[in-house]
This record gives sequence, structure tokens and C-alpha cells, in this order.
Amino acid sequence: MSVTAPKGFRAGGVAAGLKSSGAADVALVVNDGPATAAAGVFTANRVQAAPVLWSRQVLRAGALRAVVLNSGGANACTGPAGFQDTHATAEHVAATLTKAGGTGAGAGLDVGAGEVAVCSTGLIGERLPMDKLLAGVTQVVTGLASDGGPAAAEAIMTTDTRPKTVTIEGAGWRVGGMAKGAGMLSPAMATMLCVLTTDALADAADLDAALREACRTTFDRIDSDGCLSTNDTVLLLASGASGVTPTSAELTAAVTAACADLARQLIADAEGASKEVAIEVLGAASEADAVEVGRAVARNNLVKTALFGNDPNWGRILAAVGTTSAAFDPDQLDVAINDVWICRGGAAAAPRDQVDLTGRQVHIGVDLHAGTDTATIWTNDLSHAYVHENSAYST
Amino acid sequence: MSVTAPKGFRAGGVAAGLKSSGAADVALVVNDGPATAAAGVFTANRVQAAPVLWSRQVLRAGALRAVVLNSGGANACTGPAGFQDTHATAEHVAATLTKAGGTGAGAGLDVGAGEVAVCSTGLIGERLPMDKLLAGVTQVVTGLASDGGPAAAEAIMTTDTRPKTVTIEGAGWRVGGMAKGAGMLSPAMATMLCVLTTDALADAADLDAALREACRTTFDRIDSDGCLSTNDTVLLLASGASGVTPTSAELTAAVTAACADLARQLIADAEGASKEVAIEVLGAASEADAVEVGRAVARNNLVKTALFGNDPNWGRILAAVGTTSAAFDPDQLDVAINDVWICRGGAAAAPRDQVDLTGRQVHIGVDLHAGTDTATIWTNDLSHAYVHENSAYST
Repeated sequence: MSVTAPKGFRAGGVAAGLKSSGAADVALVVNDGPATAAAGVFTANRVQAAPVLWSRQVLRAGALRAVVLNSGGANACTGPAGFQDTHATAEHVAATLTKAGGTGAGAGLDVGAGEVAVCSTGLIGERLPMDKLLAGVTQVVTGLASDGGPAAAEAIMTTDTRPKTVTIEGAGWRVGGMAKGAGMLSPAMATMLCVLTTDALADAADLDAALREACRTTFDRIDSDGCLSTNDTVLLLASGASGVTPTSAELTAAVTAACADLARQLIADAEGASKEVAIEVLGAASEADAVEVGRAVARNNLVKTALFGNDPNWGRILAAVGTTSAAFDPDQLDVAINDVWICRGGAAAAPRDQVDLTGRQVHIGVDLHAGTDTATIWTNDLSHAYVHENSAYST
Repeated sequence: MSVTAPKGFRAGGVAAGLKSSGAADVALVVNDGPATAAAGVFTANRVQAAPVLWSRQVLRAGALRAVVLNSGGANACTGPAGFQDTHATAEHVAATLTKAGGTGAGAGLDVGAGEVAVCSTGLIGERLPMDKLLAGVTQVVTGLASDGGPAAAEAIMTTDTRPKTVTIEGAGWRVGGMAKGAGMLSPAMATMLCVLTTDALADAADLDAALREACRTTFDRIDSDGCLSTNDTVLLLASGASGVTPTSAELTAAVTAACADLARQLIADAEGASKEVAIEVLGAASEADAVEVGRAVARNNLVKTALFGNDPNWGRILAAVGTTSAAFDPDQLDVAINDVWICRGGAAAAPRDQVDLTGRQVHIGVDLHAGTDTATIWTNDLSHAYVHENSAYST
């Protein structure tokens, strides 16, 4: 049920012609309330797409009525005109929702553009065809439905081979969500977009705290190709329609569970990947050290190509660890691949041929022997299919 | 003539059976003096191969009589036993050279192990077959010749498709050199090894200063795949045999010219590369900013795959620039690909189809409009051949 699993939300997705394939490319998520509290987390890239600049600004008020999302174009590096396009899109969403009125759910909506977040994904550097996009917005408003979550999740796909959705059950309330992307938040690769909804009662500060903590250990720890997008956006909208007020801990746990589930789906469907790789760093002097080491291994093209080749080349893992500033003694490093401790004390241990890398799931353990902290970074291998997809994307 | 172009040097290369292919894999460079001043620069990786640990220690004395190099094994992550192997290799070189005696060049050599640098390259994590290596050393000493530079350059190749050598002419003196690797110094990719020789008269401090300055703007600015090796080594040996003492500036200029030439050869022969890419950063507030931006672009897999696909996807270049901490305003960034300014002021300018990417040489210009400093980073595209070579290297 995606973003419409919690009460108080409608959604939809339509094909507006932004994608040359004719697939769905405009999605809308509407919060019918009664509450409209919201929070967002955005890319750390300093080159930010117009929709990121817009949505960041809008969210300063801590409230959202709607999120409009398009695939088929990132609207990044499009200058002031691109920002005007985003603004016009939000205005059109607001006006169309207000005009829609009616007697059902969402009747009597009076929405301002400042309550509408915008997300875009696709090629950087090109203006969006605004006539098509605005017509798509009009169309998607017409089809908004309380079971429209799956359609919205379809419409935000780019190179995704399948939609990513999640529902987490609380005690009388829910968190729902959808995401797209071969990617992650910060640092990120291809653009990732994620909209989370909940019918819990929570104010914007609670939502913000829950979302930041959730992202920190989920989207922030997947790193498919080390490339940080201009458009990454994660939004959390609360309708309060369940009437239930969870504790901060309950809210954070549910949002984290939703993000973790979606993050794993992103890695599982990453561009061209033939492996889903968990890099678990143990014995770190700090969590930051563990994350730094995990990310260095995750971003090392020689490690990634070795995994693609089913080659337990642990020396490349050590070489990657050696590029970090984490606390460790090179002569104390242990490395396991799929639970075979192939390196102990910085040198060869179990024979390479004991490691079975034929499966899709790979677990790499790195023990720094420098403390008790730990972190897991998720990544993919570097495959021919990755090169193929990314060498032919805009042409 | 490689390392034997300057007077006072002999070299050779033999096949000792370290490589399963039967190709040459042990090289020796000997400085017959009269001077023995030397300097070295090593990988910044904290995980350092035994030969790096050894050679770094040996060079504290600022003098080298010989450098022994092997391909077919990196002797990295091999623990104390691996270090003993390196030490034993240096001892064997010293003893064999001393014993060789004779009446020709190098007659009466009395070499200690502490005057012998060791370089190794190949798979990380495996011990070297010492019986073969020591036999190879004995053999290569027998064949040392004052025209043996090319043979030495052959013997240090791993995935290189051709040897890399250089000769720079001074006024009555020369710099010669050889290098191997798809790689660079710090940060680096596959292991790079480089031995430079000169018959100039210079003390160790002069050599050290010249070599560091030369590396800073040459080997340190090539970045084929962003991966820093455990074995990178650049050595400079001076025989003084020309009797000429160049100024520091002359020495630095000649060494820099030699390093720049070899660096370009490394990029030209990088693993699987179909493009040689110069990323020239202009208008930076500092040279450090320019280097940071150039490197971020050089390491971005989405940029590299786009170049492989002949796709002038400048948006990915901006996204890479946006990950840096360099001074710039995102709305002021200009990007040129092969001299077509495809992005101005952070948005689209010249049409994509004006960019011709069919050739092997690619020039990317990034103008930060934040100052007057500049730097050029050299890299390669990310190709199917790179994935192929690196997914099948150790197996």
C-alpha cells in the first residue's frame, strides 16, 4: 500500500510524457490531515537541484499538504528558470487541489504552494517540459485515491526495475513509504527519492528527529557507487488520522524500520549489481571510524570488481582500509568474507578457496581491534552491467 | 635507455618464474657511483607492503647502491615473515654484488643490505617464492649491463601492455627512468613503481626536494581508479658520474619532466582505459581547491562511465564538483568538454551534440570562478575492459 497505507493520505501516478518510454512519470501524495506536520532530509551535495532548494525552503514551516514527484528529468543545474519551473509546479498542484474541492476525502482543501514539496529525478541539466508536467499534475489530481500508493511508487522509477514500498505497523498507527533510486542519501549515487507517511500524531520537531536518526543508520549507510546526487530527498508526512501519539522512541523505531527496509530494496535493485554486499566493521574506536572504514571499502573499485568476479581478494580490502584515518594497527587487521576469516593480523589466514562467493549476498567483516564500536555499510559490486547502464544513460 | 641512460648505472631484467606466464619478473638497477645519494617517495596508504617499510627505512641514510624490483607478487599484508623475505632479498643482492667483483664497471663493489632498496608489485597477501626470487637475483647480477635499462623496464610490468621509460637531457648530465603500473603515487590505483637515475652530482637533500616537488605535480595528479596501493614507490638515484652539479632548479625541472612523461605513459596504458582524460580546474581560490575538485571529478564513476560511452554528461561533472569543500558558487560554475563550454553559470550552454568525444584524448575544463589558481588531474574512463581485468586478476 506504500504511502497510502496510513490513514489520511491519497496518492496517484500518471504518465505525462516526460519519459520517452511512455511509462508513468508524475506522482502525487496528498495529506488530508487532520494534521500536516512534516520533515525532510536532503542531499549533502552543494550543487542542489531546484526542487531540493524549493522543498528545503518550504519545509522550514514544518508542514506539508502534498508532495509532487516526477521522473524523466532532475531539474538540476537549470538555473533560475529551473527554480521557477519548480515553483510553478507547486503552484499548480496547490491550485488544482484547492479547486478539486468535492465532498469526499480532501474536500474543502485550501492548499498553498508553500505546503507543496517537489521532487524530481532523471537527467541533470535539462529543463522539464512544463506543459506536459502541468497537464500531468492536473491528471494525477483527478485520479488521487486512498489506495493510490502503488501507482505513485511506479511513477517515480527511473532505472529501477521494480517499485520499492514498505508498510510498518504500529499499535493503532502505521508508517508507509515509497522510494526510488539505485541510490542513497548522503553520500549518494544515482538520485534517491523517498516519501514516508504516517497517521501518527507527531509534531514537526518529533518527525525531524525521527527522520534524521532513521536516515543516519539506513540511507546514509548504503553506498552503491559513491556518487552523491544533486536531488536526494527523503520526506516524512504525518496526518495524525489515527489519533494515536506514539512515543519518540516508537516513532523513531518505526521510521527507521521503514527506511531500513527501503534502503535494502534500493541496494537489491541497484544499477547493474550482481551482489548485495554488507561491510560490517567491528572493533572500531568510534562509530565514525567504523563508518569511514566501511565506506572506504564500499567505494573501492578494485574491491568491487573483485566481488563481481567472485574473487575473495582480501588484500584489496586491506588496501582500502589503509586509506582511512580510523584508529587501527595494520598488523592487527582481520578480514572475513562470508564468515571465512581469510586474513588475521594483517596477513593471510584461511585459504582463499574456502570462500564461496557464488551467491548474491556477500558479507565482509573487518575487525579493526581498536575498540568496541561497529557499523555496517551496504554496497554493490561493480559489474559490466553497471558500466553499460551508466555509459548509455543520457544518449 | 631507461635507467641506464645516465652514466654510472647498470641494470638488467630476468624471468625468475614468479609470473606464471614465464615473462621477466626480476629487475636490478645498480649505481656504480662515484656518488650514491638517493631519495624516495612512498605510498600514503597506512597498510604498507614489506618492501615499502624496508626501503623507507633504508633511505633514511640518503644513499642507495642498488634497487631490486620484482613483479609477480606485492609482498604486502604478509606479516613479519614477508618483511624477513624483503630483508633476505636485499641481503642477497648485496652479497651477490659484492662477490661479483670483477674488473669492469662496478668492480670492487662492497655493498651492504642497507644500501639496497626493494620494490615489489603483484597480488597482495601472498608470500613470494623466495627460492625463485633469490635465484633470479643471482641471475640478474650476472647479466647487469650499462645498456640494461630496457630489460629492467620490461621485468617490472604487471598488467602494463608496454614498458615505460624516459630520458631527459641536461647540460652534460641526464635523468633516466622507468615506471610500471596503471597507477599513481598518492592517492594511487594499481601499484606504481618508478626508478629514476641521474648522473648529476647532487646530495640526498637536493634529490629529496626535487623528487617531492616533481611527484606533487605529476604522479600525485594522475588518478586512474581512485585506489591507493600498498606498494607505490618512486626512487631517485644519483651517480654523480657526469661530474656536473646542476642547480636545484635545473635538477627539479629535469626530474619533473621525467616524472610528467612517465605519468602520462601510465595513464595512457591504464587498465582497460579507452580514454585519457585531463581535468583542468581553473579559477580556483587555491591550488589545493583545484586539486580537490579535479580529483573528485576523476573519481566519479558516473562521470567515468559517461566518458566511456562518449556521453558529454556535464551534469555528472557538476554533481561531482558539488561533493567538494572547494570555494565556489554553484550558480557560477562553467564546464567545457573538449573546448565546448557546455555549461555556463551552473546551467546548460552549448548543445551537447557539439561535443565530439570519439577520440581517445578528452579535456574537461571546470572554471570555479573563485580565484586564479589552477591544477590538472589526469584520469581514465571506466570501461568494460577495466571491470574485466580487475574482476579476474587473482583467480
